[in-house]
Amino acid sequence: MAITLYDLAGAEADRRFSPFCWRSRMALTHKGLAVETVPWRFTDTHAIAFSGQSKVPVIVDGGKTVFDSWTIADYLDATYPERPLLASKRERALAKFIGNWTDTVLHPGVARLIMVDVFEHLDEKDKPYFRQSREQRFGVTLEAFCADRDSKLAAFRQSLTPLRATLQAQPYLGGEAADYADYIVFGGFQWARCISKLQLLAPDDPVAAWRNRLLEAFDGLAGRAKGYPC
Amino acid sequence: MAITLYDLAGAEADRRFSPFCWRSRMALTHKGLAVETVPWRFTDTHAIAFSGQSKVPVIVDGGKTVFDSWTIADYLDATYPERPLLASKRERALAKFIGNWTDTVLHPGVARLIMVDVFEHLDEKDKPYFRQSREQRFGVTLEAFCADRDSKLAAFRQSLTPLRATLQAQPYLGGEAADYADYIVFGGFQWARCISKLQLLAPDDPVAAWRNRLLEAFDGLAGRAKGYPC
Repeated sequence: MAITLYDLAGAEADRRFSPFCWRSRMALTHKGLAVETVPWRFTDTHAIAFSGQSKVPVIVDGGKTVFDSWTIADYLDATYPERPLLASKRERALAKFIGNWTDTVLHPGVARLIMVDVFEHLDEKDKPYFRQSREQRFGVTLEAFCADRDSKLAAFRQSLTPLRATLQAQPYLGGEAADYADYIVFGGFQWARCISKLQLLAPDDPVAAWRNRLLEAFDGLAGRAKGYPC
Repeated sequence: MAITLYDLAGAEADRRFSPFCWRSRMALTHKGLAVETVPWRFTDTHAIAFSGQSKVPVIVDGGKTVFDSWTIADYLDATYPERPLLASKRERALAKFIGNWTDTVLHPGVARLIMVDVFEHLDEKDKPYFRQSREQRFGVTLEAFCADRDSKLAAFRQSLTPLRATLQAQPYLGGEAADYADYIVFGGFQWARCISKLQLLAPDDPVAAWRNRLLEAFDGLAGRAKGYPC
């Protein structure tokens, strides 16, 4: 039986743009597990109330409900040990740094470039919630938060220096093959790709070459997803 | 027979401040290997000419000469597989990102705070070389490079966010115990501690607690090294 993934969607049900849901989607596919996704909007809290919290990703595997992308990754490695996402406690510990870099450097940098685009692609019922919650968090309007995008883009690309240096020397963060660290970081780029026309990366950036490899992985799962050319 | 480590020193032969040499020193000690260090100054190129290049760390293990801190770590894991620094190719690949973050975020941030202190602790014979090469690299005088230290300190501490988030949740970058990723990052802090009175970290920073654990490791090897209280 396929695993169900509750997956953040925009106004179009097939526009799936959550960086955290992409982590889980890539992880499930890495494991070779069948997945059925359920489009979910921010205000559909009732639809995942059974999980005891209000955020996606949530997966349902038979009778088992798991939420939070790290917890899902750990659950998958514990339950389906073949093709490990992270093969040891030490790999997991090292990947945590990459996850924290993603959450505190990559995602905030992407957010300042695309939050207005996210808003524009939302279902109408989500827009008031999204604007209010994000403007409260950022302390400014979405439009002010994303102002002066061109000058921010240079600083954003500069912030990728550790990622770029790594991917200049090896094809994946996991080395010769992608592992969960790759999916964590890739989620941030796929978030942007699915929601924004902005060209986040210069075409000759080694980070772009790595992103392309992951867009093509699993028969082009991520590359075929509704989004914009990048 | 002890392994010889050529180790960057200041005017005082026992002031050892190279972040890269500290990586190798901690790695050798992690392995339980006996080490004899040889104090080395920037202009002592003749003393390591046998290695075919001009930088430390260099180790000599019996008849074998190895240089470059990553190459030394790989050599130690290959030659002395017990107590691995990094236990698999994937751990090594993941640690590369942490190494690149250290080289491109942590070290440049520390450098802007302590380069003048480095200069002041050098042997007189090294000072002209150091000033000229660094001022050429930075495009400004050492003093200008390190100006306005107090305002830079706040940005530096902010740049540690991914490290802090990780060490809030686990005692070491390697998880329950230190691995080579810890020694890589620790080298940057030990560089500062050995050469500068600047209090790089607030005392209640989880990064400071982690640094203290590594200062106390191996019977206080790093904590006993000549430096300043931090």
